[in-house]
Amino acid sequence: MAAAGGGRCVVVGGGFGGLQAVKALGKANVDVTLVDRHNYHLFQPLSYQVATGSLSPSEIAIPLRRVFRHDKGVRVLMSEVTGLDLARREVELTPPVVGAPRQTIPYDTLVVAGGSSYAYFGHDNWRSLALEVKSLDSALEVRGRILQAFEAAELETDRASRATCLTFVVIGAGPTGVEMAGQIAELANDTLPGEFRLSDPRTGRVLLVEMADRVLPGFAPSLSRRAARSLERLGVTVLVDHTVVDVRPGNVVVKSSDGSTANHATRTVVWAAGVMASPLARTLGEASGAELDRAGRVTVEPDLTLPDHPEVLAIGDMVRVRDARTGEPRVLPGLAPVAMQQGRYAGRLIKDRLEGRPTPPFHYRDKGTLATIGRERAVADISGFRLSGFVAWITWLAVHLFYLIGFENRSIVLLRWAYSFFTRGRGARLITEAVGSRSQSPSVKAM
Amino acid sequence: MAAAGGGRCVVVGGGFGGLQAVKALGKANVDVTLVDRHNYHLFQPLSYQVATGSLSPSEIAIPLRRVFRHDKGVRVLMSEVTGLDLARREVELTPPVVGAPRQTIPYDTLVVAGGSSYAYFGHDNWRSLALEVKSLDSALEVRGRILQAFEAAELETDRASRATCLTFVVIGAGPTGVEMAGQIAELANDTLPGEFRLSDPRTGRVLLVEMADRVLPGFAPSLSRRAARSLERLGVTVLVDHTVVDVRPGNVVVKSSDGSTANHATRTVVWAAGVMASPLARTLGEASGAELDRAGRVTVEPDLTLPDHPEVLAIGDMVRVRDARTGEPRVLPGLAPVAMQQGRYAGRLIKDRLEGRPTPPFHYRDKGTLATIGRERAVADISGFRLSGFVAWITWLAVHLFYLIGFENRSIVLLRWAYSFFTRGRGARLITEAVGSRSQSPSVKAM
Repeated sequence: MAAAGGGRCVVVGGGFGGLQAVKALGKANVDVTLVDRHNYHLFQPLSYQVATGSLSPSEIAIPLRRVFRHDKGVRVLMSEVTGLDLARREVELTPPVVGAPRQTIPYDTLVVAGGSSYAYFGHDNWRSLALEVKSLDSALEVRGRILQAFEAAELETDRASRATCLTFVVIGAGPTGVEMAGQIAELANDTLPGEFRLSDPRTGRVLLVEMADRVLPGFAPSLSRRAARSLERLGVTVLVDHTVVDVRPGNVVVKSSDGSTANHATRTVVWAAGVMASPLARTLGEASGAELDRAGRVTVEPDLTLPDHPEVLAIGDMVRVRDARTGEPRVLPGLAPVAMQQGRYAGRLIKDRLEGRPTPPFHYRDKGTLATIGRERAVADISGFRLSGFVAWITWLAVHLFYLIGFENRSIVLLRWAYSFFTRGRGARLITEAVGSRSQSPSVKAM
Repeated sequence: MAAAGGGRCVVVGGGFGGLQAVKALGKANVDVTLVDRHNYHLFQPLSYQVATGSLSPSEIAIPLRRVFRHDKGVRVLMSEVTGLDLARREVELTPPVVGAPRQTIPYDTLVVAGGSSYAYFGHDNWRSLALEVKSLDSALEVRGRILQAFEAAELETDRASRATCLTFVVIGAGPTGVEMAGQIAELANDTLPGEFRLSDPRTGRVLLVEMADRVLPGFAPSLSRRAARSLERLGVTVLVDHTVVDVRPGNVVVKSSDGSTANHATRTVVWAAGVMASPLARTLGEASGAELDRAGRVTVEPDLTLPDHPEVLAIGDMVRVRDARTGEPRVLPGLAPVAMQQGRYAGRLIKDRLEGRPTPPFHYRDKGTLATIGRERAVADISGFRLSGFVAWITWLAVHLFYLIGFENRSIVLLRWAYSFFTRGRGARLITEAVGSRSQSPSVKAM
């Protein structure tokens, strides 16, 4: 353990932000405790590849303990954070592990990086009907459900029900929605045909529903146009200027800008719209009086601390940052680079304090944005340079491989990509939801 | 589709036996329908590697559709088989897929390869408390539970409870039990140390409980002795001549041959003892009057058909085969090679019939048995040649890689093995049981 003199720092959340904060502190004279409800760091931008059977979970996730095994001052705890006491400077932990006791741990400095989830615009009942690719568990569920839909179609005798099985609705055309729609279309048109005898995956429909007037609203309009063209070439039906008015078991009701509504029969709805900050943001806001916006983000000072709580920092897509000059709260894009830069800044600030050095306000450097549409297709906006098609796809591939933590993962991911690129096969097309194991076989009757 | 003249063959079960039967028939003039409740073939001898985080599911499982995508006469259905009607020659399917309808499919020839599960010797309440590595789903559950035990130990403040977390009881010292015990010990002693700060995985205990007087009772005594020595060197406590008298939440009661009982506090019990044939065996027995043994195996004729039902074949570890000369039922070892040879025989018999050729009775060729104990250690008995240690381990590795279906898997498995061999790391140490995804975060209170 590092010398106690360095103070005790607790980091909540092992995502991109939290991981960088701990890395920045790992070598410093600080006792760091990293708390996450999972035992791994997830490379979230690739979750959609797990959700569509291209990659295995272990290729985009790495055990947090392994990342910090050499940093003896870093302690990793797998636990839920169920309470924050800013007055007593304590974090309450409720381990998701069966039988493990609830406990509180004290801190001198707290870094909260709780991330965000999707927003259902007040329709929380939709959450149970829609699928998400946010976490690894949910991505695996999506994989199982998409593959099950094709299996169900092969078992269906009725044409209409078969069409319902082969209809996929993706809601929200941000990078994740675009990537999911593109990959499902590829699955149906490239990977699966030839493997089914009664149903034809190519007859499947993929609908991409977006409230805004274009896909990838965060990108330059020219890139949105190219993305839309690529999606349509893949066979995706792009519905921009459309809003979802209802999600029911078995169908989705969509309303177009001209007011007309359409009812789409489907058993597979993927939700990738809206942002709702982690409940930890609200907790911090209520405890400190810091402003909260409609997405539940807490507003932090230009140095990412809470007002009147210099010992508490909050980072990532659960915060808005107050501008150093204007004082106006600013929402930064919910991207990995933002969280990583804020995590590194948090670590640096804590070290500067220990050494009595001042730290200039946080400043985000935009390195550009990338989104892949499908095999060989992507769009990229790198500080003004706008790429699309194959070049952008190669760039996307390089950037993501570069950021994948752990050599083993990187090499195996490359191997898998090369393989599925040349064969159009998908290595991880397994339905591993608890469909039931041989040992739990139902009784069989002789008819 | 193949010409209808060839008749309709239904194969139940996509394990080693069923897969070989379909492969043998794939090219023939037969319509084959393969039914399995999973969408993949599992290379079951390596499940324990998934259960201990060495391999990913996609490295030991391959989608059944992919295996037969070029055999246009082969149709794959993902479904439970919930009924067999030998009189009407129909199979009843109840798809595990949400909303898919129950249906019956007719057959001219039926091949049943339902496999087996572990037996709890009349204590079915133990099943819910113990873990298994039989199916992929259960192997993933074991992985999560074993890793959670180490996580719980790190969260524990009480020494006794910590010891309970770090105690693992494996019941049954057949190949799977020996492999599991060896791998858990390696996990605790090689892989995890250095990653924990408060608890020391090396203080963990792995108990291997076996009713018989030696481990690997199916092997030559000399190999059992070497296996036991290797296990003890790895830190496994081998308890032969011991029976489990009770499994309760939190502990296991074990009785030694001298009558004394010991109570072991543990939260992780892995069950790998006993054999109970698939319920399909009983169904076949009751419908045909064929003999059933205590393990629920159905007795088939020397040509693997049911008495008075030449159109129904049963194969794998759910059957006993009547000897062609003596007429005595014989139980063959529950190994992949047996099932594969019987599957190939079934396919050949069906083709011979179509061509009016007689088929000699089934004859099992023993190619030898193999078991690995841990990194660099294994025992092998190849038609008399008894190997152990490193040589046996290399043999085991070669044989298993050779039988792994699909080049991609083989190359990636080799890559992973090489990696974890040199680094002692494990690539797939993820707890992906529904621990809860970020989007289902519990509400956080300000204390």
